[in-house]
Amino acid sequence: MTSKIMDKFKLPTRHEPGVYNVWIEFSQLAVTTKCLNLGQGFPDYDPPSIFSNFLSEVAVEKNSYFNQYTRGFGHMRLVRALSNLYSQLINRKIDPVNEILVTVGAYEALYCAIQSNIEEGDEAIIIEPFYDCYEPIVRTAGGVPRFIPLRNTKPNASLSRANDWKLDPEELASLFNSKTKLIIINTPHNPLGKVFDYDELTMIANLAKKHNVLVISDEVYEWLVYEPAKHIRMATLPDMWERTITIGSAGKTFSMTGWKLGWAYGPANFIQNMCVVHQTAIYTCATTVQEATARGFEHEINVLNTPQSYFQNMSKELKPKMQYLFKTLQDNGLKPIMPDGGYFMISNWTNFENKLDLSSETDKYKDFRFVKWLSKNVKLQGIPFSAFYSEPHKNMAEDYLRFCFFKKDETLKKAEEILTTWTRNLLSKQKSKL
Amino acid sequence: MTSKIMDKFKLPTRHEPGVYNVWIEFSQLAVTTKCLNLGQGFPDYDPPSIFSNFLSEVAVEKNSYFNQYTRGFGHMRLVRALSNLYSQLINRKIDPVNEILVTVGAYEALYCAIQSNIEEGDEAIIIEPFYDCYEPIVRTAGGVPRFIPLRNTKPNASLSRANDWKLDPEELASLFNSKTKLIIINTPHNPLGKVFDYDELTMIANLAKKHNVLVISDEVYEWLVYEPAKHIRMATLPDMWERTITIGSAGKTFSMTGWKLGWAYGPANFIQNMCVVHQTAIYTCATTVQEATARGFEHEINVLNTPQSYFQNMSKELKPKMQYLFKTLQDNGLKPIMPDGGYFMISNWTNFENKLDLSSETDKYKDFRFVKWLSKNVKLQGIPFSAFYSEPHKNMAEDYLRFCFFKKDETLKKAEEILTTWTRNLLSKQKSKL
Repeated sequence: MTSKIMDKFKLPTRHEPGVYNVWIEFSQLAVTTKCLNLGQGFPDYDPPSIFSNFLSEVAVEKNSYFNQYTRGFGHMRLVRALSNLYSQLINRKIDPVNEILVTVGAYEALYCAIQSNIEEGDEAIIIEPFYDCYEPIVRTAGGVPRFIPLRNTKPNASLSRANDWKLDPEELASLFNSKTKLIIINTPHNPLGKVFDYDELTMIANLAKKHNVLVISDEVYEWLVYEPAKHIRMATLPDMWERTITIGSAGKTFSMTGWKLGWAYGPANFIQNMCVVHQTAIYTCATTVQEATARGFEHEINVLNTPQSYFQNMSKELKPKMQYLFKTLQDNGLKPIMPDGGYFMISNWTNFENKLDLSSETDKYKDFRFVKWLSKNVKLQGIPFSAFYSEPHKNMAEDYLRFCFFKKDETLKKAEEILTTWTRNLLSKQKSKL
Repeated sequence: MTSKIMDKFKLPTRHEPGVYNVWIEFSQLAVTTKCLNLGQGFPDYDPPSIFSNFLSEVAVEKNSYFNQYTRGFGHMRLVRALSNLYSQLINRKIDPVNEILVTVGAYEALYCAIQSNIEEGDEAIIIEPFYDCYEPIVRTAGGVPRFIPLRNTKPNASLSRANDWKLDPEELASLFNSKTKLIIINTPHNPLGKVFDYDELTMIANLAKKHNVLVISDEVYEWLVYEPAKHIRMATLPDMWERTITIGSAGKTFSMTGWKLGWAYGPANFIQNMCVVHQTAIYTCATTVQEATARGFEHEINVLNTPQSYFQNMSKELKPKMQYLFKTLQDNGLKPIMPDGGYFMISNWTNFENKLDLSSETDKYKDFRFVKWLSKNVKLQGIPFSAFYSEPHKNMAEDYLRFCFFKKDETLKKAEEILTTWTRNLLSKQKSKL
């Protein structure tokens, strides 16, 4: 067809903010460069067999109906298990039918939560860095994102920690106005690894209450917290249940990102509106995966707070990996920031800025140039940190890149070898120049 | 919270068309009335074990990554299998990477296809009866649906057939104008069971070409056609590939509605725009289910056109069920329409209109009143036919209800017993009145 005829079918304007996607670009790059991929956030080894066995069993259970449609807003056994678990955790009885929605990953839960609240022109406060989909979802819904960066309060500390990055309370207060519909928080935080403490959450909660604003609390890494940090659920703060939608993920909870199952819980009025968006876009989630997730939760609820609990053991499994990558990055001059939660680590690469020729890369931001150069030349992949910032603030993030440490020890060792060889060669080249 | 404070969080206007959902209402009713459910479209017996075994294997395959994220627009093994199959069926090489998108059921494929093409005020032609989600998706996107009913061209035929319901070509032509962006067709058709023939599709195709309009062709029941009817793919008509998005479903293809996996194939420009909507709402589908579906297709491609082909055997399995339900309805005065495809049957209940007191039901349309009364009093459930019509045309549909016959023989026999007992009692009551 000629392009003039096809002009009629160009993407509607409202969807344009969704065109660029960093994951598409960098997973493609990982494939074409055949590099060691510490970019995307998922384990590169088998998940706990107890949970994958549940899925395997469910798929072939006779006379079970698990291969057929189930309830659109969540398979009953799953919403009951979610209610059972989270009612204990937030110390409030959650109605499984009216206060929970099961979604295609936390991603779709975010989509439904934002779409069902944003009218044209409404404002949404987004904290930088932010999981990249927040911005296009808000814009596609006709909303106006208002960005506020976390700022490193101890730039000269000998040990750089994620929890030293904080919001400026006055700066945050200045963003609230009569158009503010919602604020999105993410704790434990991706990509920074920050875990918001009680005082920080209270400060946000007080502003939300004062200005009658909804809080969307993305808590998908809720079980991944490194002591002494502690995960606090926004919905447990005084008078916050009624204005909080909390989002979780089976992918993160059971280390099964490929299950693509998530959920939201909150007051019935918010969940009901989310259900409308869900039933227009998707209608229902895969039954097999929901039944398997329900069994996973039932298993975990029985062993909660015991040494058998996977939820409790996850951070124990991950902490040595985190420490190993931290040391690797530190030893090689890629100054890391110690995370307090999650499975990502931010690393400052400015030591290398004057030692490398990145002119083969044409991206606008230097972290994009560095990450691509690194993938192609050193065969190690991260994600540029500025991907998690709004356009006007990307320059605040160009000194960093993100790595994922939820990888087998062998992979992390390989990363160490790659980085050590590279920095050693770089050093010897410099010496030979002198 | 007080309602005044909560007014701020009412559902955005654009989502209001999605509030009512017939499936939510009637699946709930089936549970509360404990009736025999011939309403919703899914088999009530175990699907072919060969396909469910694939899912069971995939979930626990060691070192496989099948429990982790895969490519956002479709797992490579699946898009290759889809390309392999459909390239043969439409006699044109389909690029697995750029011309296919994998979605959360055909439902999400419809959502992406419509959302990525409708700008505020664009018109979409929808043929009545229609699968109910077409209308709210179009409206939520800001579009204006223009409805045209299929009309029974042989109202006095002794055998009522779905294929006798036809579009009036002049009436259809009159709906096209400069604002028309797309037309949605559904063949084989749900709920009517009509299979569009070559001449009918050509008539629609010619109008689409003349007015430069996109055709969204919902072909989820493509393998469910009863001889002599034959499924013709819109994309195979002359010059139609370039303006057709074809939608399919693993749920319908493998009788696994609970897998919630679908796809769209078509020209790269359309698929690319659909990908943008998909990556904003969902990002990616469950890997396990995609890998299992890929294996299912690979198995089927090897046995295509042989007696081992499930695709070919499905309609052989279903035809006796269709004939059994047809006879049951006919014998009991619920005049059925013989379907040519799909697994639904429409039945005319007007014989009973003057014999029943439906005043206990308060719905606006009499088919809703009848179906609810039947669920509660006779313990058999269908779906009111007017649920598949736009508000101004619902009166054209009130004489009918829809039944699903993809049920085990035992279930269909039970339906027969229920209906026979009911009509016999009704008859004896009437006689005793005389």
